[in-house]
Amino acid sequence: MSEIRYDIITGKMVIIATERGKRPHDFKIVHSEKKNNVCPFCPGNEEMTPPTLVEIKDKKGKWLVRGFENKFATVNTDLKSFEVPSLYKAEYGYGVAEVIVESPDHNATFGRLTLEQMQKVFIAIIERYKRISQDDKIKYIQVFKNFGARGGASLEHGHWQIIATSFIPDVVEKEVTGIQEYIKKKGKCPYCEIVKCEKEEGKRIIGENENFIVIAPYASQYPYESWIIPKEHQERFEELKEENIANLTEILKPLIEKYEREFNFPPYNIVVHTVPISDIRNYHWHIEIIPRLTVAAGFELGTGVYINPVPPELAASVLRIE
Amino acid sequence: MSEIRYDIITGKMVIIATERGKRPHDFKIVHSEKKNNVCPFCPGNEEMTPPTLVEIKDKKGKWLVRGFENKFATVNTDLKSFEVPSLYKAEYGYGVAEVIVESPDHNATFGRLTLEQMQKVFIAIIERYKRISQDDKIKYIQVFKNFGARGGASLEHGHWQIIATSFIPDVVEKEVTGIQEYIKKKGKCPYCEIVKCEKEEGKRIIGENENFIVIAPYASQYPYESWIIPKEHQERFEELKEENIANLTEILKPLIEKYEREFNFPPYNIVVHTVPISDIRNYHWHIEIIPRLTVAAGFELGTGVYINPVPPELAASVLRIE
Repeated sequence: MSEIRYDIITGKMVIIATERGKRPHDFKIVHSEKKNNVCPFCPGNEEMTPPTLVEIKDKKGKWLVRGFENKFATVNTDLKSFEVPSLYKAEYGYGVAEVIVESPDHNATFGRLTLEQMQKVFIAIIERYKRISQDDKIKYIQVFKNFGARGGASLEHGHWQIIATSFIPDVVEKEVTGIQEYIKKKGKCPYCEIVKCEKEEGKRIIGENENFIVIAPYASQYPYESWIIPKEHQERFEELKEENIANLTEILKPLIEKYEREFNFPPYNIVVHTVPISDIRNYHWHIEIIPRLTVAAGFELGTGVYINPVPPELAASVLRIE
Repeated sequence: MSEIRYDIITGKMVIIATERGKRPHDFKIVHSEKKNNVCPFCPGNEEMTPPTLVEIKDKKGKWLVRGFENKFATVNTDLKSFEVPSLYKAEYGYGVAEVIVESPDHNATFGRLTLEQMQKVFIAIIERYKRISQDDKIKYIQVFKNFGARGGASLEHGHWQIIATSFIPDVVEKEVTGIQEYIKKKGKCPYCEIVKCEKEEGKRIIGENENFIVIAPYASQYPYESWIIPKEHQERFEELKEENIANLTEILKPLIEKYEREFNFPPYNIVVHTVPISDIRNYHWHIEIIPRLTVAAGFELGTGVYINPVPPELAASVLRIE
């Protein structure tokens, strides 16, 4: 049998197959062959990328984390005009696209970085985030990491991406609106309520520390999806202080290690959810981690409703961090 | 540079990279190894599947098209109760899931079926569609085909799927609502307007015949996406008469052959868009074909906005059926 579960914030439905729960070994992870091309993200090849925008160096002056404009930017600030047929509507794709290389080591996966190195990645991301947000035309900044070819990573050297847009995207607006409506109706932040409920229930907790909780969300769209939520109400990702970054990485590192070990380095995405720039509406930032174990097919494309073959309760028990 | 284009019906945005248009050979199609397992969809193995629900036979009594319940149904009619934590919302996943095997030939791809065989597939689908829609609890029926592992097909023997749900899915409701709003504002069906505009512009036409037009939609979410739209206003997929089915397959077959040839049998989805059962709102049914050439990654997951590296005008020129 199956359950249709609803996201309490956006109302989004998911069909969860509760009887046959797929275990990690039920998913076939295909690794594409390693390419021998020169890697533009490796130390010594800096001239293959646009100029450095952010850099964290070691004592000898070598970079440990390095950020620059995305050479293959999907949006940019170079305005041009174009024709739009009268029936249709289009706008110029204004925005900023940047890359943060997370380590000089080509072969280090994110889970194998030291805690200190992971912290430097977040420090660099937040520095760029704050800088990009000074552009008045920017409305939203999406921070994310793609890992593996099926996770959408076109280069294997570990990196994060920042894409800033001149509009508030659909999914973001829907979530922000959903939070306001929830607060209006119940007088409480829905994410604070989720933290409370999950602590009481226990069944979907993957791990927790002083500042953060990791859960398999009740209405998980994807098998083995997890969310890292600040336990105390905190509006914006960029408000993360250095001591909180340390605390975040202390739970993120074992979580990513667990995914890498249980699923043999699966493709995955890490997606930061935060509030649009200069948006004064309520929010509670969090991070969503989505291993790419299944493919959205005809049913998902036609209906927008995902089929998840793994109950979140099973996912939590498999992913649990001791 | 890039353009942000809007779907005129749903308002959905897409970022289209207009400068670097990727050609078919820019996409690497990986074919998974053929398995030697016994195929439950092949003639002679009928006892491996649930009982026959629809069958079209040749003169000798052998089936040419065969339909049955999906053995691994994600929804079914076997009602059970379950617990829902007080914070959350869930319902029982009531529904119907069926499979239509499109040919006795294990190795025939959809593009290689004869026109007559393709017509039989649609006749069988519509027969089941009409039968399933008699269940009062069913609100929507999604008809689709997944091809290739990355297209979500778990078996390689060519087949279609029908999944019927007790709710109107998100994407469907948004499209139906969008059509009503468009009609209210402009007094015309937006799909009829698209047919008219595309015939005038010509740039995004892939092919047409007496009853159907194939276009690369102006705000294509996916590279090399195409839509087949009835030229005359026709509300529902299941209204397709036999003479129209013949006309549909006469344009669908060369289109699928073109995809198979240009992209070396890419994974793809064919998705029927029609109006919910007993829904009296306006609609104009159509078919969307989505080759799976790129991966939705962190940006798409976080924002819901897709990045399409191929302008639809280029897609149309590559896919054009002579």
